[in-house]
Amino acid sequence: MAIVVQKFGGTSVGDTKLIKAAAQRVIDTKLSGKDLIVVVSAMGQETDRLYDLAYEIMDDPPPRELDMLVSTGEQVSIALMSIAMHSLGHDAISFVAGQIGVRTDSYHSKAKILDIQRERVDAALREGKIVIVAGFQGVDEQSNITTLGRGGSDTSAVALAAVFGAELCEIYKDVDGVFTADPRIVPSARLLDTISYDEMLELAGMGAGVLHSRSVELAKKHGVPLRVRSSFNRQPGTLVRREDNGEAKPLTGVTFNKKEAKITLHRVPDRPGVASTILHPIAQRNINVDMIIQNPGRNGVTDVTFTVPKSDLAEALQVCGQVASEIGAEKVLSDDRVAKVSAVGGGMRHHPGVAHRMFAALALEGINIQNISTSEIRISCIVRDEDCDRSLRAVHDAFE
Amino acid sequence: MAIVVQKFGGTSVGDTKLIKAAAQRVIDTKLSGKDLIVVVSAMGQETDRLYDLAYEIMDDPPPRELDMLVSTGEQVSIALMSIAMHSLGHDAISFVAGQIGVRTDSYHSKAKILDIQRERVDAALREGKIVIVAGFQGVDEQSNITTLGRGGSDTSAVALAAVFGAELCEIYKDVDGVFTADPRIVPSARLLDTISYDEMLELAGMGAGVLHSRSVELAKKHGVPLRVRSSFNRQPGTLVRREDNGEAKPLTGVTFNKKEAKITLHRVPDRPGVASTILHPIAQRNINVDMIIQNPGRNGVTDVTFTVPKSDLAEALQVCGQVASEIGAEKVLSDDRVAKVSAVGGGMRHHPGVAHRMFAALALEGINIQNISTSEIRISCIVRDEDCDRSLRAVHDAFE
Repeated sequence: MAIVVQKFGGTSVGDTKLIKAAAQRVIDTKLSGKDLIVVVSAMGQETDRLYDLAYEIMDDPPPRELDMLVSTGEQVSIALMSIAMHSLGHDAISFVAGQIGVRTDSYHSKAKILDIQRERVDAALREGKIVIVAGFQGVDEQSNITTLGRGGSDTSAVALAAVFGAELCEIYKDVDGVFTADPRIVPSARLLDTISYDEMLELAGMGAGVLHSRSVELAKKHGVPLRVRSSFNRQPGTLVRREDNGEAKPLTGVTFNKKEAKITLHRVPDRPGVASTILHPIAQRNINVDMIIQNPGRNGVTDVTFTVPKSDLAEALQVCGQVASEIGAEKVLSDDRVAKVSAVGGGMRHHPGVAHRMFAALALEGINIQNISTSEIRISCIVRDEDCDRSLRAVHDAFE
Repeated sequence: MAIVVQKFGGTSVGDTKLIKAAAQRVIDTKLSGKDLIVVVSAMGQETDRLYDLAYEIMDDPPPRELDMLVSTGEQVSIALMSIAMHSLGHDAISFVAGQIGVRTDSYHSKAKILDIQRERVDAALREGKIVIVAGFQGVDEQSNITTLGRGGSDTSAVALAAVFGAELCEIYKDVDGVFTADPRIVPSARLLDTISYDEMLELAGMGAGVLHSRSVELAKKHGVPLRVRSSFNRQPGTLVRREDNGEAKPLTGVTFNKKEAKITLHRVPDRPGVASTILHPIAQRNINVDMIIQNPGRNGVTDVTFTVPKSDLAEALQVCGQVASEIGAEKVLSDDRVAKVSAVGGGMRHHPGVAHRMFAALALEGINIQNISTSEIRISCIVRDEDCDRSLRAVHDAFE
């Protein structure tokens, strides 16, 4: 029988009533003739409550013990979900990661799934049971409990869908699907019927937050069709899948990121390898550099601009101060009152002039673009943070 | 190095501050030159909270899923306890039952421990780590999570002490130890320095509630010295150990049980096997029969009296009605307003006249004894429930 994986997030299982409603949805799918593997997150704010307990005791708890602690949130949810299935007259069985061999590496709190054993799940499905699996968790080679990082339950669901050859992986959220923009900021935002993996990745990476990047990467790698939909209504939501040739639109969505600050090294002597000289010591401190822009000036000097998370700005500036004096840059400038506004669309590469339309829309609003960077299917502009919302609306509406 | 097992109950780990205090006690023992295995219960009312969630969904949740659910309570505690040790500068590692092979049978919610693997714990102890183990839980042969029933963490602690040859198993409670009587009822009650396993078993079985019977049986079987003490002060508490010859007192403690009702089959034809005919169908319904008293009367008839839990009285009476008509008993009487008052003392067997002193003390108070039964080291009397407290005080003070 065809297998469907359904994943329910924390707000979809926030209390026992919601859990029962989710169980009913699973059963409806089961009755339509599918085998079901269900992945559940921790209830509501349970994961935060558990982290808080740990941080009450110490500031930097050992990661292994933190994983031991927070993995209980999903264990509670799977047991309650299974009980809910039984209360509705259906046979179900719940498994924690260790029981079905969700093997990961040993990087606690950000582990990667290496392998999943099929035997026990296959046997349960053969017996007609609905299989319920704890998301977000795994076990390493020594059977230590690991977790996959925030949003990791999406990744668990996709990994299970890939291993068991599921025809579909449904991700139930408290939103209706993926929108062309955040509807709270852009009133004209529309729900997308479909979106490609690549577009979703660009949106996820930009902070749109509907799906975790890693889960989308994994779905793309294994060709798992993902459906993002609401657990609070029966709308079909958004299907994330391989791009259909020719069909891609120039603009699929707009998004923003206010969590980054900008650093510019001004008047750096323009020698080969200078960018690497600047960025290497920053990478060594595990600071994630995003946009990197190098504009050669005159007289053999250049400006190098890049963005880092605001939370890492102080440390990055310290490193830059040292590097600047070593390489003879004139000065280091920084700005943490910026926002990155991005337009994403798989059709961009076939529709010339998309960038122009975006810049024109911003100009028409009198918004100054500080920096620009692009990928094949994305154009990002740095603007002042107070211009962020207006920029989003302007760009979004220019393409409607 | 000598191993000590320390077990902390739910009230001893009720919040993160208490967990840190418990961690400090463990560390103090470690610094005195011992290897430590620590067993922890779920925090405060956590187990009840989890059961309540399940019962919100359905009245009789499947036991396997219930065990999956409630076993998380101990997992949270061990992780926080380990974090607390680290916060105090000591290396510790927490284990759920599956990680150290606490193998049980498959009787969910009342599983029995069959075996514990030594390798992983031994390795951690060799590395100088404090080992923290989730109490109350095990795994069966299919790696399903099981629980040992209420009070099961005491049993986990004793089983670990037995397997690892611990020199002592300390059970930390919210009471100072084992008393000669419940101090809330008998103001003159005293804390006992020592008590034998057998005396403790009689007291535990009678509802004294300080230790779970199964943990005491296991300690007796393996000769594990148990110390019951408070986690809120540094008093030594009560040592439970093998009886020293000659030292045993005629009376170690008095206790009571108000949770049982009495059933009498009146004027039963006195044939061999009649008691078994009556009790067999009751046992078949899993109703626990405690005191059984048979008094032969005249004319070939006899009265058979026994006690059952009050919660099972209605069902037991239904069975008795049927049996009574089958065997020709005259009538079935019952009384649920009774209490069982027991005096326990290992020295009873060498001190004649203990029973007499007990009965005289009750008579002096004008308390009517309805029924009497005895074991080698216990005398129990059924009295009216409103006479219970006075009976306890009278018997207790008669032996001071």
